[in-house]
Amino acid sequence: MSSTDKMDLMSKHRELLNQAVEALSTRAFWTPFPEHPKAYPAEAADTAQAAFGKMLSERFNELQVEASDWIGEEVSPYWQTGLGISYPAPNTDELIARAEAASAWGSVSADERAAILIESLKRVEARYFEIAYATMHTTGQSFLMAFQASGPHANDRALEAIAMGYSELKRFPDSVEWVKPMGKFDLHLHKTFTAIPKGTALVIGCSTFPTWNTVPGMYASLITGNPVIVKPHPKAILPIAIVIAELRNVLRENGHDANIVQLAVDTLKNPITKELAANNAIKLIDYTGGSVFGEYIESLGKTTFTEKSGVNSVILDSAADIHSVAQNIAFATSLYSGQMCTAPQNVFVPAEGIKTDNGMLSFDEVADAIAQAVKGIVEHPKMGAGTLGSIQNDQTIKRIQSGGDFGGERILADLPVVNPEFEHARTCAPTLIKTDEANRDAYGNEFFGPIVFVVKTASRERSVELAAELAMVKGAITCSAYCTDPDFQKRIVSKMNRAFTPVSMNFSGAAFVNQHAAFSDLHVTGGNPAGNASFTNPEYVNKRFVWIGNRFMN
Amino acid sequence: MSSTDKMDLMSKHRELLNQAVEALSTRAFWTPFPEHPKAYPAEAADTAQAAFGKMLSERFNELQVEASDWIGEEVSPYWQTGLGISYPAPNTDELIARAEAASAWGSVSADERAAILIESLKRVEARYFEIAYATMHTTGQSFLMAFQASGPHANDRALEAIAMGYSELKRFPDSVEWVKPMGKFDLHLHKTFTAIPKGTALVIGCSTFPTWNTVPGMYASLITGNPVIVKPHPKAILPIAIVIAELRNVLRENGHDANIVQLAVDTLKNPITKELAANNAIKLIDYTGGSVFGEYIESLGKTTFTEKSGVNSVILDSAADIHSVAQNIAFATSLYSGQMCTAPQNVFVPAEGIKTDNGMLSFDEVADAIAQAVKGIVEHPKMGAGTLGSIQNDQTIKRIQSGGDFGGERILADLPVVNPEFEHARTCAPTLIKTDEANRDAYGNEFFGPIVFVVKTASRERSVELAAELAMVKGAITCSAYCTDPDFQKRIVSKMNRAFTPVSMNFSGAAFVNQHAAFSDLHVTGGNPAGNASFTNPEYVNKRFVWIGNRFMN
Repeated sequence: MSSTDKMDLMSKHRELLNQAVEALSTRAFWTPFPEHPKAYPAEAADTAQAAFGKMLSERFNELQVEASDWIGEEVSPYWQTGLGISYPAPNTDELIARAEAASAWGSVSADERAAILIESLKRVEARYFEIAYATMHTTGQSFLMAFQASGPHANDRALEAIAMGYSELKRFPDSVEWVKPMGKFDLHLHKTFTAIPKGTALVIGCSTFPTWNTVPGMYASLITGNPVIVKPHPKAILPIAIVIAELRNVLRENGHDANIVQLAVDTLKNPITKELAANNAIKLIDYTGGSVFGEYIESLGKTTFTEKSGVNSVILDSAADIHSVAQNIAFATSLYSGQMCTAPQNVFVPAEGIKTDNGMLSFDEVADAIAQAVKGIVEHPKMGAGTLGSIQNDQTIKRIQSGGDFGGERILADLPVVNPEFEHARTCAPTLIKTDEANRDAYGNEFFGPIVFVVKTASRERSVELAAELAMVKGAITCSAYCTDPDFQKRIVSKMNRAFTPVSMNFSGAAFVNQHAAFSDLHVTGGNPAGNASFTNPEYVNKRFVWIGNRFMN
Repeated sequence: MSSTDKMDLMSKHRELLNQAVEALSTRAFWTPFPEHPKAYPAEAADTAQAAFGKMLSERFNELQVEASDWIGEEVSPYWQTGLGISYPAPNTDELIARAEAASAWGSVSADERAAILIESLKRVEARYFEIAYATMHTTGQSFLMAFQASGPHANDRALEAIAMGYSELKRFPDSVEWVKPMGKFDLHLHKTFTAIPKGTALVIGCSTFPTWNTVPGMYASLITGNPVIVKPHPKAILPIAIVIAELRNVLRENGHDANIVQLAVDTLKNPITKELAANNAIKLIDYTGGSVFGEYIESLGKTTFTEKSGVNSVILDSAADIHSVAQNIAFATSLYSGQMCTAPQNVFVPAEGIKTDNGMLSFDEVADAIAQAVKGIVEHPKMGAGTLGSIQNDQTIKRIQSGGDFGGERILADLPVVNPEFEHARTCAPTLIKTDEANRDAYGNEFFGPIVFVVKTASRERSVELAAELAMVKGAITCSAYCTDPDFQKRIVSKMNRAFTPVSMNFSGAAFVNQHAAFSDLHVTGGNPAGNASFTNPEYVNKRFVWIGNRFMN
């Protein structure tokens, strides 16, 4: 493309980039991507379902990649039938060689990289509805969640990573004349400062949030000049494949090698992730998924950014209105059937019960209020199916349904979920276990999916201790707390923060602990075993390149 | 202390802090600490030698630490006799317990921390001359180098770390009102952003630059709220002990626990570094020293900042005047007898020789010019002893003198060094080996100290390849290049930068590759095996704390 086109693209997105950089510092609410489907053209919604339908049982050709192998094994959790879509599957050597051949990306200016990457987000925006259907039928999310999480919210996080990377790349001047007074004369040196990309990056996706958890690392590596290979979960490829296709289009149109970003695919039976991750050419790895594999990734001695599993707690000390609290907890644990990394698993309640505006409530009354609220959501004819979505894979259900009594009392189990739209949907309503703090073998482990432990503790102090200990030992991404005593609020915040876990205090109504907003909320802190990185602090981009200062004498 | 005193201290150093933060961005020449001894009061110089003399053969009481054990085994490389100074030696458990008890430092505001730390640099400034003698008689540096490196240049690096830490801690607002439009209503959340220190930090010093290499990590951990234990090399304790004593005084005066910074001491026979480093309470480790121990430190799975060894190259392609180049290389390799981590070891010269304004010079002529220039420095009655300083320890000499012919031709060896001031000084003039690129077993390893290989290569391209390969495999902190061809200059810079090594091009006169100026030059890039950190990029401070965002409703 001509240099005029290049300048046009940069000036087109200049204001948005500046706003994004500014938003990172102020951390007030900001987004250029409205989250409501209604904010987007009706025709996009209309054509998307048809477009998605046409993709089924076909080769995904949009990447424009030659390959002898085409594979794919995605299954819709709503239909419980295969999507039949296959993707080009270059082998590891091909992927690495193509990425290395695309390393000239590292010499492209930060301004041009930012403009190209933002342009790709605009293209993605035009396909939100398709991506929503793709997400729905791979992850089991409801349509609305799929739209928001994989569309505008993912684009927010991508733009956030671009903005953070851009501002860090601009932190030092390109060059400076350095003049040191030496007494009788001045010493003059011309100095340059260059951000050298670390090298080819691998981004490993998860099955539940195939774009939201993938685009931050992908765009963070790209803005800092590293070619990227994305290896999604074999059961959730399509959503990110569409994003990558759009990105490759923009790269190509702007005269760059499309292989600056590549899709790698594999199957559950023949996984290639370890082979890719261990390859010497891979210098950066972003990973979202289980802890065991995450620890393997961290052990490779490379620059890694992980989000693993954790055990999130609710600390319930006191509340004005138990029903508002129970409703909020019920929704937070029921949303997408507890398959969010931010969903609470354990609700710690003191044995003596909790203070409310209507007097003390016993432990059993609290547990019952939560159970009733969950039941209310599950059985709600309008809200139920949409809130719960469906279950991404069979294992999640098996773990809970065949898990016995978990050493406690099941106060909610086997509630039927009615989904009139998808009669074959794989669903599972939340199981509620009432138990005691001694039963740590159960609640002390992560059970991904729709299960909640209401845990009786010796005291409110003990609740905080247990939540903090679990965060340090098992990891935690969120902690929700309900407390009307300002001093004890401070104790909770201080204790949990020292376990590198953020606190969401007294959330009710439309505020849910699960939701982390880009440009304001840091997602994962990087300080406890739930992960070693954070969307998006400065480290998240700084670690992807190396500052080099050269000096020249005339 | 009263809150008025606190405000006074903060406003006293506010301007300096702002200037330092600004200097980090502009990277132009800046320092508040003049490097010339003459810039400081004459009385300070006069009394310092006496003060140093009084410390000899005594207990170092300034730390005000109770201890049952007092140890010390420092030896002056100039006198080759022991200093006889002993230091309080709490054991590892005591050190850790005291550090953990001082963790309230993490809740002190960034502004107050910065003011206290800057005040300590002012106290250190008043003791530059004492620290210079202490450095001279532990490291073997000349008086002038000891003054500059351990005094103003170390204070520069300390202030740089404070400024970088401060600006990162101020990157996010303390709190923000977040208002999200939800259609029919607005969702209001009050959010706070807190930088939580990672925990107790260990800083492991080296024998050659006991303050310059120690204060960056020490102040970086302190500004970000972490208590610090400093474990200097057993042969070079006094310089940093004085710095720590002053810092403890300032902490005490301002109502803080002096144990926020502690000195740990050991002996060569009974080292405690591994015991400290492996302790679970230690979360951050700064390390300067050999590669084997450095790799052990990096393998601990903690947050580490290492500067290890490397092999620095000179790429000699072409030059206007060979004598200016030879003089510059000779000085860079002779300064402190090659005991600087930035000193060049290998000079790569093409077999066909190099272009100069006076025509081609053969490889042998180039090698001879460098040898003559080194000889000129060593034998210079005024410059010789002061440039070479003395040798920190016997091993450095043994490695070189008993190393055989290193597979090449010794064109300079066993030159006598005359030091009229210190007749017992441990000295060793540089050895020059003329060899061939095939002899990589020799020049491909680091020989710390006064040895230089002039290596004949197949071509100038091959010179760059060898320098870049060595940087990637063995590590490199600097690369000096001489080239009058603008296109080939770019090739050198590009190739070396991709090996994460900065280039100093055509240095002559008062510019030396060894010298890295704070607020402008990054010291070590962190990208090759010479180390995983850089004085001072943003990562150097960001990794020492964790950002936590809490959210409150109402």
